[in-house]
Amino acid sequence: MPARLGILAGRGELPARLVETCRLNGREVFLLAFKGQTDPQTVAGVAHARTRLGAAASSIKILKDAGVNEVVMAGALERPGLAGLRPDLRTAQWLARNGAKGLGDDGLLRAIVRTLEEEGFRVVGVDEILEHLVAEPKTYGRLAPDDSARADIERGIAVARALGLADVGQGVVVQQGIVLAVEAAEGTNALLQRAGDLRREGPGGVLVKVRKPGQERRADLPTIGTRTVEGAAAAGLSGIAVEAGGALVIDGEAVGKSADAKGLFVVGVTIDS
Amino acid sequence: MPARLGILAGRGELPARLVETCRLNGREVFLLAFKGQTDPQTVAGVAHARTRLGAAASSIKILKDAGVNEVVMAGALERPGLAGLRPDLRTAQWLARNGAKGLGDDGLLRAIVRTLEEEGFRVVGVDEILEHLVAEPKTYGRLAPDDSARADIERGIAVARALGLADVGQGVVVQQGIVLAVEAAEGTNALLQRAGDLRREGPGGVLVKVRKPGQERRADLPTIGTRTVEGAAAAGLSGIAVEAGGALVIDGEAVGKSADAKGLFVVGVTIDS
Repeated sequence: MPARLGILAGRGELPARLVETCRLNGREVFLLAFKGQTDPQTVAGVAHARTRLGAAASSIKILKDAGVNEVVMAGALERPGLAGLRPDLRTAQWLARNGAKGLGDDGLLRAIVRTLEEEGFRVVGVDEILEHLVAEPKTYGRLAPDDSARADIERGIAVARALGLADVGQGVVVQQGIVLAVEAAEGTNALLQRAGDLRREGPGGVLVKVRKPGQERRADLPTIGTRTVEGAAAAGLSGIAVEAGGALVIDGEAVGKSADAKGLFVVGVTIDS
Repeated sequence: MPARLGILAGRGELPARLVETCRLNGREVFLLAFKGQTDPQTVAGVAHARTRLGAAASSIKILKDAGVNEVVMAGALERPGLAGLRPDLRTAQWLARNGAKGLGDDGLLRAIVRTLEEEGFRVVGVDEILEHLVAEPKTYGRLAPDDSARADIERGIAVARALGLADVGQGVVVQQGIVLAVEAAEGTNALLQRAGDLRREGPGGVLVKVRKPGQERRADLPTIGTRTVEGAAAAGLSGIAVEAGGALVIDGEAVGKSADAKGLFVVGVTIDS
């Protein structure tokens, strides 16, 4: 029987999905909830402890005391600045090793993965446990992108990958060849709201979410759900494209139904790397 | 005596600065104002005509009839979608030649430059006429970036250049190694407002504006002024960095005074290309 799974729980519904799946499979879980980040309903009724991002040493002790030996990170974690991090000694060691880069974007999450492995934990990706959520190369729902949308998707992928090489964001909104908005720290919902304000007259507009080239997939994967579909619809977009095999769709059936109801396409596209 | 200068007038105060400088030098000007884009006060008291971006043929005729043979583009022009552009035959020819790319970001502006040249106009850069506004490798005002700000500037330049290679944006806000916000179609003022909302606890935060690698400098140059300093201050940032030789500062003395008053640094940094 696999050991107890420790879930480092960020925002959104991914942590709750993990708990649900583990329960169905009879696997024990333990949640590590981050102050001001983990949704309160995620921890309800689940064995858990609260911590903060800068408290590496006590977090590791909590996980060991709970009998965890396999760990998964799930849901977005906002990277705090140095003052907000209030690093303990262990965290300060990361920072000394990584410099300012240790706090930037993927940097902190990579450092967490590495530190957990040094402490003897096995670190797995969400996609290894929730395989059924990994984006497939198909359309979710009835609609498919037209030629204009395909051109915008292509441009969005190029921009997102350029950004990703600089270790920034995962989301881009393109309409008629014009890059309306690019995601950094604001998150996809805020990105979509802005894109709605910036939309040009005429049809189209596509949200593209792809993995960063070389991204640590165990730290963070681009994720969409019905809320993303609703946000894209509210922004007047015609559809959403995610990287097949490199993004999560929570969950495919609900997303397809929501897309049909809103008149959007949602498509998984294969990217040659 | 140099021929009459045609000014393709976008947003902001650059077109008015050009008019002012030409008058001081006794040079005649003619303004082409774009509907919904050029500030009304820019055209007051200046020989001008109104046009729209999709009306290439009539715009060229207007300039020729006005006796213009040298043209400069000044101030940001918002790229409309295809529906908003309502292209005339001449504009449709560009689009046929350039495809969707013709509408994307720099694409449309480059096409305008090329078409004007084909029509026999000499196209000059704003920086050739307003040489005194080109950013210098120095601090404007009393303050200089500290080590932490220098690290953020370095990261901002790397991100802005990665974005620029994909022909997007010119502005990035970085704090403590975290890329808070990246500019696409929203403009620098909106970028700064968002960055203020996304700022982390603790010091710092830098706005970086650099040229895109290979950017058509006659079409668009990153520009800052006192309003940028005020926006950066309102967002809680510690300073602004622009590319020396590759950005415009309107004008240096006022920006330096504003920076001092707000307690920010403004620095021109040299970028190895």
